[in-house]
Amino acid sequence: MTTHEVANALVKFCTEGKLDKAIETLYSPDIVSMEAGAPPGQSRESKGLAAVKAKNEFWTASHDVHSFIVEGPLVAGSQFAVVFKIDATIKAQSRRFQMEEVAVYKVADGKIVYEEFFYNM
Amino acid sequence: MTTHEVANALVKFCTEGKLDKAIETLYSPDIVSMEAGAPPGQSRESKGLAAVKAKNEFWTASHDVHSFIVEGPLVAGSQFAVVFKIDATIKAQSRRFQMEEVAVYKVADGKIVYEEFFYNM
Repeated sequence: MTTHEVANALVKFCTEGKLDKAIETLYSPDIVSMEAGAPPGQSRESKGLAAVKAKNEFWTASHDVHSFIVEGPLVAGSQFAVVFKIDATIKAQSRRFQMEEVAVYKVADGKIVYEEFFYNM
Repeated sequence: MTTHEVANALVKFCTEGKLDKAIETLYSPDIVSMEAGAPPGQSRESKGLAAVKAKNEFWTASHDVHSFIVEGPLVAGSQFAVVFKIDATIKAQSRRFQMEEVAVYKVADGKIVYEEFFYNM
């Protein structure tokens, strides 16, 4: 898959709420995923497919998603950017919040090998 | 200025080839600029307006730009992303190259405080 094809597939999966399918089909076993920040004692970085799947499963299980809007992609060589606009509730706290973030992805050999998220902490 | 206004102004300046004006008018004195990589012994990071101006002036002086296409912006909260597609010649080497990169910007108090570039090394 070209970068454009990977980018469009990611946007389609995310728009349909199928982040698990995006990870399963588009991510490299060697994926590195970088958050904008992390709680004290935890790392911003997750390495490997199992860690990234676990991060996604935790997020999905702990949130009720009211809307999840994806804008983009903007594609440049083997990189692309999208924007996520999320309206969700943290189940355990019954706390609803809205957040917007930029995500940058790098593609190698047709798979996503790196992702980084930019949002306010 | 809102993030959208800063983003649109940056795209306009860059499309017109006025990167110097973009830096002068839109960048914070405390700007941090992060390249995807750096030559051995050099830093990926430039800090402060003087360093970022100098980096831009060096680039401008050492390249003939044949085309400089800007796509975007994608705006998310106080962050935004654009794509640059550059066709240029390194004057000293008479070497023409094409490159495409994703740029991510963070805005605070109406000024760009952080920029990071994603491209293949």
